[in-house]
Amino acid sequence: MEVPQELIDQLEKSNKILLQAHRKPDGDAIGSLVALGKGLKALGKEVDYCVDTTIDPRLKFFPEMKFFNKDLKEKYDSLIIVDCSTKDFSVYPDKKTEWDNLITIDHHKSNQNYGDINFVYETAACGELVYQVLEKLNIPLDKEMREAIFTALSTDTGSFQFSNTNSQTHKIASKIYTKDDNFAPLSKRLHSTKSLEQLKLYGKAIESIELFDDGKIAILTLPYDVINEYGGIENVSDDLSNIGMNLDTSMISVLIKEQEPNEFKMSIRSKAPFDIDVSKLATKYGGGGHLRASGFSMEGNLEDIKINLVKDMEELLNE
Amino acid sequence: MEVPQELIDQLEKSNKILLQAHRKPDGDAIGSLVALGKGLKALGKEVDYCVDTTIDPRLKFFPEMKFFNKDLKEKYDSLIIVDCSTKDFSVYPDKKTEWDNLITIDHHKSNQNYGDINFVYETAACGELVYQVLEKLNIPLDKEMREAIFTALSTDTGSFQFSNTNSQTHKIASKIYTKDDNFAPLSKRLHSTKSLEQLKLYGKAIESIELFDDGKIAILTLPYDVINEYGGIENVSDDLSNIGMNLDTSMISVLIKEQEPNEFKMSIRSKAPFDIDVSKLATKYGGGGHLRASGFSMEGNLEDIKINLVKDMEELLNE
Repeated sequence: MEVPQELIDQLEKSNKILLQAHRKPDGDAIGSLVALGKGLKALGKEVDYCVDTTIDPRLKFFPEMKFFNKDLKEKYDSLIIVDCSTKDFSVYPDKKTEWDNLITIDHHKSNQNYGDINFVYETAACGELVYQVLEKLNIPLDKEMREAIFTALSTDTGSFQFSNTNSQTHKIASKIYTKDDNFAPLSKRLHSTKSLEQLKLYGKAIESIELFDDGKIAILTLPYDVINEYGGIENVSDDLSNIGMNLDTSMISVLIKEQEPNEFKMSIRSKAPFDIDVSKLATKYGGGGHLRASGFSMEGNLEDIKINLVKDMEELLNE
Repeated sequence: MEVPQELIDQLEKSNKILLQAHRKPDGDAIGSLVALGKGLKALGKEVDYCVDTTIDPRLKFFPEMKFFNKDLKEKYDSLIIVDCSTKDFSVYPDKKTEWDNLITIDHHKSNQNYGDINFVYETAACGELVYQVLEKLNIPLDKEMREAIFTALSTDTGSFQFSNTNSQTHKIASKIYTKDDNFAPLSKRLHSTKSLEQLKLYGKAIESIELFDDGKIAILTLPYDVINEYGGIENVSDDLSNIGMNLDTSMISVLIKEQEPNEFKMSIRSKAPFDIDVSKLATKYGGGGHLRASGFSMEGNLEDIKINLVKDMEELLNE
């Protein structure tokens, strides 16, 4: 996983650099932007950021973020897009902005190598690749940059728990600690901290658990009035979708969110090491996703929907 | 943090080795025992284990554990005690058993160096020290040993989130992965998996949250009948005590567990980076603990107890 020399050469000769990431940037995208941006500034480059500002409040703590979308120029030597598999998915400035060279740094398997220079490897986090670029450029990491790389690694691996975590993820984590670093408060901020409303929704989701087939199937339901009572759908975070998978007996689970009266959004999950492909069920209902995490929408009567979903999930289990 | 040469010499010349750890062994103790025991067996040693069998079910998956407390001999060349700060705290066989040499491998600051040979350093997990002993002895780690070291590291650091985590913790984590290792299912087992009753108790604890002083103080209560409905006090795990600390506004929280009617056990926590010493409050009521995690017991009327605790916690906040 060698950093391409042409990428290093291009960065060294670029003076005006624009950074972008995918829409709704997550911890890996934000961490990659901040670490790379500050690093290039340390080399004396003029760095601007063009970033979608739909950002989880937990990530809004890097001082560098105050430069996001500030003073965009009409012309850049290089545009670098991090953590973004397709050109269309990233955020573009208006048409006036131009660049000579497009660089992509990304860890998505599906990346289409749409840059003039592409540094694409399937790592746990894009932040691992950014770290390697900074290392190759001999840029020392200040505290904000170390926290940015840690945020990238920690969020994309679920605190080093997901199956994308490997030897290199830990090796880079090991390298960014100085003697005095303590990333515990940051970990807490990224992984545990919730508002009262978010916590209450978590409790309500647990309360709603219904089990079928000796607990192999779990259905959790958040009705419209409950979601509304606790701050609305933006408070229904991803970890609610995973509660059903935390149950010792479960193999497949679905979280039913009533976004509008009688309009439901489903998050369906299956548990490793079982090979239950929940994306099949999502596709059946016009949704999509991955083997173990997919989503789809439905309208109608909640009880009928549940009865049908149990049948569908039983079929998946028996395949 | 060099492994003492005399420890290596002693292990090399010992043929019969007994292993022990602290009572109620946790993930670090079990992981250290299994990795070290299997490693020494790989060197051709006769290894026995004398272990307290009060063990969290989540840890009961290592095949090596079938040898725990089996066929203890009357005489050993070496007794090795891992992850245990005081001699009295470890588990001893009956009086017939003797040993020529006592070795301690431990990461507790308070360790009293009670062995003939002591390998004591304040690391995140004792498993880090065991890993270094195995490395120094040039013993390759099989899958069970790698999972054992991972379990030690992962449990004692709360999946690399606690403030004890540092560069070396990640460095050793990095070293134990082979190309094919995926510790995600193990992480899930250690950190997320719960029975339905444990999940329901989690939900009930959230439901019970009461806030004071603009949310700086959180009180959670599990009444006797609720605890009893969901499997009894042994289902009230440590993470329930931390729910109050996951709240964005909280600085101090207490979980009140009614173990018997009108008999309460309190788990009190305070949040970094604030320096609120909850052990003071625990000591006031005859309990004890650490700066940010302590416990104590009380009897009486729940409502009166709550009123007094809020006053106590307000005093701590205003110190």
